[in-house]
Amino acid sequence: MSEFPKWVTAAPPRPDLSAEMRARERQARLTKPAGSLGQLEELAVRLASLGGRDNPGIAAPHILIFAGDHGITEEGVSAYPSEVTGQMLSNFVTGGAAISVLAREQGAILQVIDTGTLLQSAPAGVHMDKVAHGTRNFRREEALTEDELFHALGAGRDAAIRAINDGADLLILGEMGIGNTSSATAIAAALLNGDVAALADAGTGLTGDGISHKARVITESLTFHELDSGGAVAADTLRKVGGHEIAALVGAAITAAQERVPVLVDGFICSAAMLAAVNANPALRDWLLFSHRSTENGHAAILTALNADPLFDLGLRLGEGSGAALALPLLRLACTLHNEMATFDSAGVSSIS
Amino acid sequence: MSEFPKWVTAAPPRPDLSAEMRARERQARLTKPAGSLGQLEELAVRLASLGGRDNPGIAAPHILIFAGDHGITEEGVSAYPSEVTGQMLSNFVTGGAAISVLAREQGAILQVIDTGTLLQSAPAGVHMDKVAHGTRNFRREEALTEDELFHALGAGRDAAIRAINDGADLLILGEMGIGNTSSATAIAAALLNGDVAALADAGTGLTGDGISHKARVITESLTFHELDSGGAVAADTLRKVGGHEIAALVGAAITAAQERVPVLVDGFICSAAMLAAVNANPALRDWLLFSHRSTENGHAAILTALNADPLFDLGLRLGEGSGAALALPLLRLACTLHNEMATFDSAGVSSIS
Repeated sequence: MSEFPKWVTAAPPRPDLSAEMRARERQARLTKPAGSLGQLEELAVRLASLGGRDNPGIAAPHILIFAGDHGITEEGVSAYPSEVTGQMLSNFVTGGAAISVLAREQGAILQVIDTGTLLQSAPAGVHMDKVAHGTRNFRREEALTEDELFHALGAGRDAAIRAINDGADLLILGEMGIGNTSSATAIAAALLNGDVAALADAGTGLTGDGISHKARVITESLTFHELDSGGAVAADTLRKVGGHEIAALVGAAITAAQERVPVLVDGFICSAAMLAAVNANPALRDWLLFSHRSTENGHAAILTALNADPLFDLGLRLGEGSGAALALPLLRLACTLHNEMATFDSAGVSSIS
Repeated sequence: MSEFPKWVTAAPPRPDLSAEMRARERQARLTKPAGSLGQLEELAVRLASLGGRDNPGIAAPHILIFAGDHGITEEGVSAYPSEVTGQMLSNFVTGGAAISVLAREQGAILQVIDTGTLLQSAPAGVHMDKVAHGTRNFRREEALTEDELFHALGAGRDAAIRAINDGADLLILGEMGIGNTSSATAIAAALLNGDVAALADAGTGLTGDGISHKARVITESLTFHELDSGGAVAADTLRKVGGHEIAALVGAAITAAQERVPVLVDGFICSAAMLAAVNANPALRDWLLFSHRSTENGHAAILTALNADPLFDLGLRLGEGSGAALALPLLRLACTLHNEMATFDSAGVSSIS
């Protein structure tokens, strides 16, 4: 049974409840029927509470993309070949990927970290922080050694600290790794109730038979690792069926929360990583904002387990942090509305008596 | 039986199908699994098709808010008093309303048009274009005369033309009018199947008994006007149970489409107006983009009738065009992704063979 290093389980601070109360009180005075801005009201209140300030805002969003390859692709579980992971790293830093466009357009700083791809050398602009080239095939052996797991968690922590030292007031976490929906599905099944069939889905583009095959491979893997009855613990699960980039997401989110920086969570893989992270460190949950509901079948079960109600469902399934980056304007507009709308008093508008 | 002036029913041009085909072809070559950007892909393709261009974009969004008062408030169908309509006009132009904040933050030009409020004189910055102060109480008489209806349609047309002459490449339509969810509910019931109970809801803040009372008032009104069996025509419906601002929305949307400018539709009231507009002029439908699903109960039925699948459901029910303005970043980001992402070829990324 693995145990996490102490920093992973150290509880982050609580949100600022007095800032939250003041924000709720202000929302009630803004010139709109109470509740009529729906989820945006709650979003502004949470950002006030997490930021511990009366004028919430996101001035310096940073996007961290962690990349790693997966030995499980040997089992034919992905529509794309592993070399795409490395190819996409170049695309991230040269500006052609979806997340690059979204970062540039919104003034977000993009950090790309190779935590375990098959690449021998990283393209210029990619931060190399790895001790392995891909995971082992988790159908036949443990995906990561304990050392590798701890290194990947630390790569996440270090990337988060670099961003925060650089002024980040929100972290958007993303990932790239051919094969990683298989790892994420295995993690979710192990931590939840073991039901792989309800969680496995298309990933980058499998269809009927491909999905059944993937589900079978994952089911066999969980049996092999004695993770098939659900309710597993995160450290064990991440080592046995996880991935370098998934462990890095865990380390980055926990570090951000410990440093009072909220985390905007992307789709299926990131949410599976957050399921593991909250399993390891329950107080992390307060610091997580969920952006979207992916089409990937298993996402709903993870969101339910995390009691998360994302902002939208646009049929996304790209990863890279792209869904989270698409939600950034809503977070910012929620804050601006909160800060700049007139109150009933100041505008001389009659409220309900 | 009223008939519309000819300009209302003149079909707008068809979208550019060759631009649409080129946009689809480009989407397939961008560095992402096919379909993985979900609704954003379709959005970019539609904006390319409506704009008739290979690099879709929204450079000059204009927001038109039409305001009018409603005689039906005499029947106690709203949580807020009618004077709020006029008070909010000042709030729109002095910058304190939600839509003002959203317009400013996104560089959208805001036009506020008084098409029929109770105000004797409009606040500075509000465009006054009305021949009546509020509608008649439609439980007892027709809400608008034919002249008033035609004037309100024309006020919408003229506002749209002002925006388009000013360079607008997208119109966001919004409204303000205490009592107008009652009018919108009556319109939707008359045009659809007459089922008021399934459509009536809280508006600005009614609760249980208030909603039942509102539904009863609307049901009695539809019986009085012989609109209670559903399947009515738009001209009759708008005159009998409509509103100045709702007719103006109809006129503005049709004019925009005739001038090849897409319309981004807000929530319940705007959608009810678009139901009437599409009833009058079916080819308008191509030019409408739907932003969000309101919490107002009747919105779903209208969206289904219009075969519309909005971008998000954030529990909004404010009106003013605010939900549509919140969707603007997604439209813009969909275009930027379409225009700026690398292709598999240009980025040297392997696609599925």
